Amino acid sequence: MSWLPIPTGSHFSIANIPFGIISTAANPTPRPAIAIGDHILDVRAFADGGGFSASPEVKDSVNCFASPNLNAFAALGRPFHRATRSFLQSVLAADTKLPEVLKDNKTLRDAAILRRAEVKNHLPLAIGDYTDFYAGKNHAYNVGVLFRGPDNALQPNYTHLPVAYHGRASSVVASGTPIRRPWGQILRPGDKKPSLAPCEKLDLELEMGMFICRENSLGAPVSVNDAEEHIFGYVLMNDWSARDVQAWEYVPLGPFTAKNMGTSISVWVVLADALEESKGPGIPNDTELLPYLRQDAKNNVLGIDLEVDVITAAGQKTTISRTNSKNLLWSWSQMIAHHTITGCNLRPGDLLGSGTISGTESGTEGSILEQTKGGKIPLKLEGGEERKFFLDGDTVVIRGSFGSGDSIVGFGEVSGTIQAPLPLF
Amino acid sequence: MSWLPIPTGSHFSIANIPFGIISTAANPTPRPAIAIGDHILDVRAFADGGGFSASPEVKDSVNCFASPNLNAFAALGRPFHRATRSFLQSVLAADTKLPEVLKDNKTLRDAAILRRAEVKNHLPLAIGDYTDFYAGKNHAYNVGVLFRGPDNALQPNYTHLPVAYHGRASSVVASGTPIRRPWGQILRPGDKKPSLAPCEKLDLELEMGMFICRENSLGAPVSVNDAEEHIFGYVLMNDWSARDVQAWEYVPLGPFTAKNMGTSISVWVVLADALEESKGPGIPNDTELLPYLRQDAKNNVLGIDLEVDVITAAGQKTTISRTNSKNLLWSWSQMIAHHTITGCNLRPGDLLGSGTISGTESGTEGSILEQTKGGKIPLKLEGGEERKFFLDGDTVVIRGSFGSGDSIVGFGEVSGTIQAPLPLF
Repeated sequence: MSWLPIPTGSHFSIANIPFGIISTAANPTPRPAIAIGDHILDVRAFADGGGFSASPEVKDSVNCFASPNLNAFAALGRPFHRATRSFLQSVLAADTKLPEVLKDNKTLRDAAILRRAEVKNHLPLAIGDYTDFYAGKNHAYNVGVLFRGPDNALQPNYTHLPVAYHGRASSVVASGTPIRRPWGQILRPGDKKPSLAPCEKLDLELEMGMFICRENSLGAPVSVNDAEEHIFGYVLMNDWSARDVQAWEYVPLGPFTAKNMGTSISVWVVLADALEESKGPGIPNDTELLPYLRQDAKNNVLGIDLEVDVITAAGQKTTISRTNSKNLLWSWSQMIAHHTITGCNLRPGDLLGSGTISGTESGTEGSILEQTKGGKIPLKLEGGEERKFFLDGDTVVIRGSFGSGDSIVGFGEVSGTIQAPLPLF
Repeated sequence: MSWLPIPTGSHFSIANIPFGIISTAANPTPRPAIAIGDHILDVRAFADGGGFSASPEVKDSVNCFASPNLNAFAALGRPFHRATRSFLQSVLAADTKLPEVLKDNKTLRDAAILRRAEVKNHLPLAIGDYTDFYAGKNHAYNVGVLFRGPDNALQPNYTHLPVAYHGRASSVVASGTPIRRPWGQILRPGDKKPSLAPCEKLDLELEMGMFICRENSLGAPVSVNDAEEHIFGYVLMNDWSARDVQAWEYVPLGPFTAKNMGTSISVWVVLADALEESKGPGIPNDTELLPYLRQDAKNNVLGIDLEVDVITAAGQKTTISRTNSKNLLWSWSQMIAHHTITGCNLRPGDLLGSGTISGTESGTEGSILEQTKGGKIPLKLEGGEERKFFLDGDTVVIRGSFGSGDSIVGFGEVSGTIQAPLPLF
């Protein structure tokens, strides 16, 4: 419990302490902050006001909070993140032993505590490279059936290595950013020639995202058992997908323009430490793994409850999916180990996506493509509307959290509203 | 001709004026420079010494040269690049009308002119995203035959759109950087299970690279006829490829760890204007293109003579390929138009690769994979050695230029030496 009022059910309990980048009307400079209940602690203002001077581990490195993104903070490594989170928890605790730092320091409270409703959030980190994995085995199977039939749904490599592709970093956007329905090249069923048209099969992909904090040198793979130290924290992700564009373009080199028009992420990075307790087994893998993918820890997959809402232009809200992030075949450590096995260097701020997370039952799928069997069975929404894929004006909201009551560790949400396509040229 | 001595045959004639980033033992701060014959003009020192004060177009924006990369210069746009190059040509010309600027200004000459042999080159731009196209139709066909047989060599989409995938920006390195032979996951012929081993089929890919200078907003495609204004300049590229890793991992999402261990680029960016005269028709495309890919200019593909040398550890040099960059199905403008058609934002410093450039005859292929028919027919080198793929200690050098005599516009070279794999963990 905190001396700051935190509503029961808040994603931002004192057990969380997620980091983001905010600005305000009064101070438009983007700067680090944490979310706590319905409030924000402006971490730069807190640092500038001497808030960290009672923390021997943090006080000498507070210039990382002078940055307009979290890359410098991330690069200081997990022991530093741990010390910072722990110190802020101790300062915010109802029974704080350091009341003079903030609780009883009206000057610093006035300078550093804001209401969450009054801040604007920005991308939390400057993203160098973005890689999207395909670790959601149920999704990979469901989509494989639709694209290639049940016999070739999963390729022979699928259980031997975490399949992934390089994504587009420039078009990763913060939650709330509208998504423009793209034009694209499409081969309609039965047509012999492709058409240029606004995407007719616009879809979501429900994913988790992970930010890297520690760099490995080019040529130096990261060991699977050391990989946890390279994880800064996690976000929710919606990897918007133009399914008609994807089906036509993706052979032989993978998705390209079908995915590069926008990827939305939630704005508060939940630190790796805050989600340790959610870990458990992922999807079992009967394949004998090569040594570089054998992780000592077996309970290595995060267990975040996930929900997807669709809100129509008419304002009707429907929860279309409920699932959990344990539906992954690979842990983040295994993904890092594979990403770097040929020597690829990861850098602080790099973003990795999990791949779409689907359960095995109806109503647990992480994409419309799966729910409607490729657009064949319309999804029924509250208010009587139906969807084969998304329409202009639809808003997609993904929520995610672990725990309950007064100790929820959550992400808030990632949302995006689909805008009508612009005329082309 | 220049008042500075420029050897006949130099890639860096006064017709060129390519930009790069250098440092020296005396001044280790990376800074912009141009190459001219066997000399360097330190552009930051030139600007600091008032060298641009006689140029009305350049003088007010010289702070772009205070940057440790060329991104700020690139972002000022092609008219600014044109004015800068033209002014530097006029200052360096044998019959310069501005001798007081540099030719007769010993102080500035001493401060800004260096010998090329004494500088260290760095990556010319901070690369945001790297995208690799597949526009070398002859290569795509040759590799398609090896991977999928002649009937499926080119996919149905190939002549309708410039196929591409997102690459890895963090592992793009400057010419001269050694390349460590990667470990990777390989399924050997006849094996039922993959192995973890040092790559047994390490290959080059002969490509051209292009840097973006003008940003387009997310959601706003670039018209094919406006795309030239988004091109900063060009480099040579070797997109190192682990063929055995690639063959096993690439379905269904494309190459990943087979390509992300290193991509080498030449260090001098040849400005787009400097290569206008090299343009001609590319590989003919009989497919009727969708309007967004129809470019008014028909002579739209660069014609750069390209050569690949292999130098063995024993020092024997063999030129294994001679070809030309006109062997592309798509122009850079078409690649930009397609990259952005779904709304993807390109930013100054983004790097695009052409795809591997191969001719149609023996000795014109841009990869060992093609020359040896997948490792079946060894390549004979000077000194009696043979290669199916590259060995540790081999150095691969790509050279490229246009023109002849005293007016060559060239890239110099991009080189990399293969190092033995390190023990794993």
